[in-house]
Formats: sequence, structure tokens, C-alpha cells
Amino acid sequence: MRVLVTGAAGFIGSHMVDRLLAAGNSVIGFDNLSTGQIRFLQAALANSKFVLHEGELLDRPTLTQAMQGIDLVVHLAANADVRFGTQHPRKDLDQNAIATWNVLETMREQGCRRIAFSSTGSIYGEPEVFPTPETCPFPIQTSLYGASKLAAEGLIQAYCEGFGMQACIFRFVSILGERYSHGHVFDFWQQLSAHPGHLRVLGDGHQKKSYLYVQDCIDAILLALDRIDNNRNGKNVNIFNLGTDEYCEVNDSIGWICDYLGLHPEITYSGGIRGWVGDSPFILLDCSKMRSLGWRPKLSIREAVLATIKYISSHFEENHADR
Amino acid sequence: MRVLVTGAAGFIGSHMVDRLLAAGNSVIGFDNLSTGQIRFLQAALANSKFVLHEGELLDRPTLTQAMQGIDLVVHLAANADVRFGTQHPRKDLDQNAIATWNVLETMREQGCRRIAFSSTGSIYGEPEVFPTPETCPFPIQTSLYGASKLAAEGLIQAYCEGFGMQACIFRFVSILGERYSHGHVFDFWQQLSAHPGHLRVLGDGHQKKSYLYVQDCIDAILLALDRIDNNRNGKNVNIFNLGTDEYCEVNDSIGWICDYLGLHPEITYSGGIRGWVGDSPFILLDCSKMRSLGWRPKLSIREAVLATIKYISSHFEENHADR
Repeated sequence: MRVLVTGAAGFIGSHMVDRLLAAGNSVIGFDNLSTGQIRFLQAALANSKFVLHEGELLDRPTLTQAMQGIDLVVHLAANADVRFGTQHPRKDLDQNAIATWNVLETMREQGCRRIAFSSTGSIYGEPEVFPTPETCPFPIQTSLYGASKLAAEGLIQAYCEGFGMQACIFRFVSILGERYSHGHVFDFWQQLSAHPGHLRVLGDGHQKKSYLYVQDCIDAILLALDRIDNNRNGKNVNIFNLGTDEYCEVNDSIGWICDYLGLHPEITYSGGIRGWVGDSPFILLDCSKMRSLGWRPKLSIREAVLATIKYISSHFEENHADR
Repeated sequence: MRVLVTGAAGFIGSHMVDRLLAAGNSVIGFDNLSTGQIRFLQAALANSKFVLHEGELLDRPTLTQAMQGIDLVVHLAANADVRFGTQHPRKDLDQNAIATWNVLETMREQGCRRIAFSSTGSIYGEPEVFPTPETCPFPIQTSLYGASKLAAEGLIQAYCEGFGMQACIFRFVSILGERYSHGHVFDFWQQLSAHPGHLRVLGDGHQKKSYLYVQDCIDAILLALDRIDNNRNGKNVNIFNLGTDEYCEVNDSIGWICDYLGLHPEITYSGGIRGWVGDSPFILLDCSKMRSLGWRPKLSIREAVLATIKYISSHFEENHADR
């Protein structure tokens, strides 16, 4: 199969590239290298079945070149940030919604019918049902990031109905693991590198969060794509929550990180049940639909946090820290 | 109050302008006159409290000029077409989603905090719950129109959360009444004007649809805006379905129209439970939330259809018909 992976040099994208190549596929990577790292593709670039296109999804001609002969698009490129959305209110619309429309329209023009898409549990806003199923009550958006992913989902669904495409949409919790480069584990590590005796925490520390290990995430995507491709009567639109069946408090995660680093910092909290505007005080997704395909995560949240802090500690210089 | 009405020259927009002026407000109209009709604003233009800006919502500088000193935006401008979405797949994204972002961002820049928005029951796709409440299970989009309105809703909600705005979002059924200029009543009238003995119907004629009379729609919007403005603890995001508590089949509507015109055409059906891709076979919204504010529609669906065919018959020349 010939697969286009957008966001190929990113945290999740580069793992996806590696796994698709390992399974014998031809992989076309697409990335603007704004946050992606070419070093994540070191192994892939040595493989003759991999080609990287450096470009913007908002640049249709470049995208059209990359879309030649593609059987499946794994669309992972995104502005994957909730917290700073209000500082650049157009970015999510451009990078997530309009970019996805460009992917869809280019697929349509080039005759590619299948797409996998990384959506987010953030589109549930602040749900009232826990664990939150894919069919929970119609949510209200609380972040520009969530709104832009919702817009992208809607466009994908409408293209499936209007143009006979087939989509697997995955609503992720936060993903952890090797090549992780932004999020709470990174923030805490940066702070503790700069001043090991003190940690500032946004919110009250009791925010309840779910996380998933990156290889468990990839396992789920590849399994769902395989099952739905082999089911010729499959629905056009297939939506799966992806997460663990557990959650932790931010304070739990801090404890695991500090234990690993052998630190006992004084902790101060900014207070409030949300860390920032659009933060969700409680994320726990009902992943029984994905589990019904036979998938289950191999790592617990604690194990995923530890894999992440281990990776960060060994791959980043302490002088990257924000002093 | 100084109110900006987008889509001011349109079917619903021009009625909104008239009603806002009648209530003593200053009204700034904004319209690109692509489908709006300047003649709908004849009375308004004679009122010193009305100003019309002709411009595109995608043109931020023009929009910024119109947004000066505005207390409330009633955002009705849209590409309000489901059926032809697949013929121009970018139009809904531009006219509904990106245009709404421009409205929101210009509001933010100019310090306007309140917005009323015309969303649509089409964002429920093909729901499984009837009548369909605002909190029905998270729907899947079946049209580019619905997807673009969903995107606009999400952006509005995120701006409310992120920037302290307040929104009333109205999910309309199809609206009927004076100044109506596209939709099934118009299509049928055009056909019967061209060939009174024959009517072609898309679908099997059993599609179940809800309609609302335009003045009932305006009543609801103005009432909700009044109640929520007077409730200082009101939510940031307030969503209301707007429709009648009844539905009719397309065949019922045909019967009322033919009775009015005194015609007995031979009817042929294209067949299928949907008239076109993205058509919803059954629309019936649960409007109890809006009714709880004291609103109820004054006209039944049959009365609204008759008001519409009466208006069309007396305002359009038969040679407009599609022969």
C-alpha cells in the first residue's frame, strides 16, 4: 500500500512512518518541519520505500505532488496545542480545519478514498458523562483547538458522504512516549532542570487526565484501518476514542516524575480546577468501541509517564530549560 | 442598542432588520448582495437609524468598518444551501466557517461581546432521536453545509470561552414566509409555472420535514436575546432549536401548494428516501428549550407553506421559471 503521512516528522507521525515501513508499505511523508524533527525520520530516510516532502498543507500544489498514487492518507499534521490557542486565534483554523479541507479536496481530485485522522478528546469540551463515549451528548467547544478539530471531523464526514470516501477518525487523549516534545511532562522536566527545588503547577493539581503510550496509539490506528479495510460493508465514517481505561491526577504524574528524577521539590499551584482557558478538568474516554476490535493498551499511564521522562532526560540538554 | 446584521438583505436578515428598527435599535446592515435583494431593505433604507454596508465577510477591513461601536452582532449571512454543496466544495467552508471566524475576530478586536448565530438542524445529520434535542448524541455530518455550520458553532463557542463573549446559537429548521427565494416551495412553483401538468419530485415524496414561519423565527431570536441579556448569570453559550412541534411529508406540502394553485399535476419521483446527497430523510427538532422561554410559533407548517406560495405567486414572474 502507498500511504501519505502528514505530520510525518512529528512525535506520533514519525512513529507511524516507522511502523508503516516495517509492515512493508511505501510511505510518503509530508511535513513543514515547524515542530517536526528531521532526526525522528533518520531510520525512515535510509529506507528506499520512504520519501519526504517538505511543504505546507496550505500549499495545494505541493500537496498535490505528494498525493500521486496514494491509497491511504494518515492525516496527523496539526497545531496540537490547546493552551496557547487564544494567543494566535487564527492558527488552529488554518492548521487544523483549512489544512484538513486541503487534504480532503486533494484526495478527491487525485482519487484517494481512505483517510485516517487524529482528532482529539478535547472536542468533548467539558463532558458530563464519564467515561465519555463517542456518542455522548452533543458537546460545546471550550478551546479553539477542539473547535478546529471538530471542524476537521465534520469536513471529513461530509466528504465521506458526498464523495464516497471512507474515514477512521481517532479521538486521542494526550499521547506520551519516545519523541514526545511538548506537554506537561516536558514542562515539569524543564522547570525541574532549571530549579530542582521548586515546581509551579497550573491549576490545583487535581485535574484528572488520561494518557496513552504512543505505540499503543499506533497499534490501535493500524488495527482499525486493517479491520475496516477488510470489511467491505464497513461504514463510511468510523469514530474511535483512544485512551486508557484509567486516569491520573496531575499530582500523581508529578509524583512519578519526581520519584524518577530523585527530586522533592516544593510545589506551588496557580489554583482553580483548570490549568488554563480551555483546559478540561477531567478527561476519561470510553474506549470500548476500539477495545471491541481486540485492542488494548500495553502500558499503564504510570508506565507511559515513566517512558516519557526517561526519554526526555536522556535526549534533551538541561540548558534547554526555561530559566 | 447598535446591532450589526450580517446577511441583512437576505430572506431572514431583512425581516430581522425591519424588526430591530421597529424596536428602536440602530441597525448596521452588512451584505454582499450575492443572494440578498436590495428591494427587501426598501423600508429600512428610508429609516435614518439604518446603514447598509455592501461588502464581503471575507474582507476584514470592510467588516472592521461596519463593526464600530456595535453592541450585538446578529450573524445570518451564509451560503444557505445543502443540496449543491458537492458542486463547489470550498464554498461552505469559506462563506460559513471562515466568514464566521472573521466576524468573531473582528468582534474581539472591536470589543463587541454578543452574537446571535443562525445555525441549522442539518448539523444533526441523520439523527436517531426524534424529536431531536440540542443535547442529542454527538452527530455525524452528512453535508458540507452542516459541517461548515458545525465548524462555525465550534468557533463561536471557543471564542465565548476564550474571550468572554456570549452567544445565542439557533439551530433552524427550514424557514418559510415572505421574501423566501429558494427551497422546495420555490422549486415546485417554478416547475408548475413552466408545465402545470407535471411535477418532478426528488426522493420518494415521503421525506419528513419541519418548517418554521419567518416571523416566528425572528420572534424566537429576539425573545432569547432579550431573556439572556437580562440574565446576568446567563451562560456564555446558549443553544436553541427552532422549529414547529410537527412535521409534514414532502407530499403534504405538494398537496397544499397544488390546492392553492388549483392544479392537479402528474407527479413523478426520483425515488429513494433522500432527495439528494446530504438530504435528511426526517427532520423534527425538540424545541422545548426555546418554548420554555414562553415562545411558540403562531403559524403551522401548512399555514407557513401557504403564506410562502402566496408570496411567490404574487412576486415572481412566471417567465422566471426553469423551462
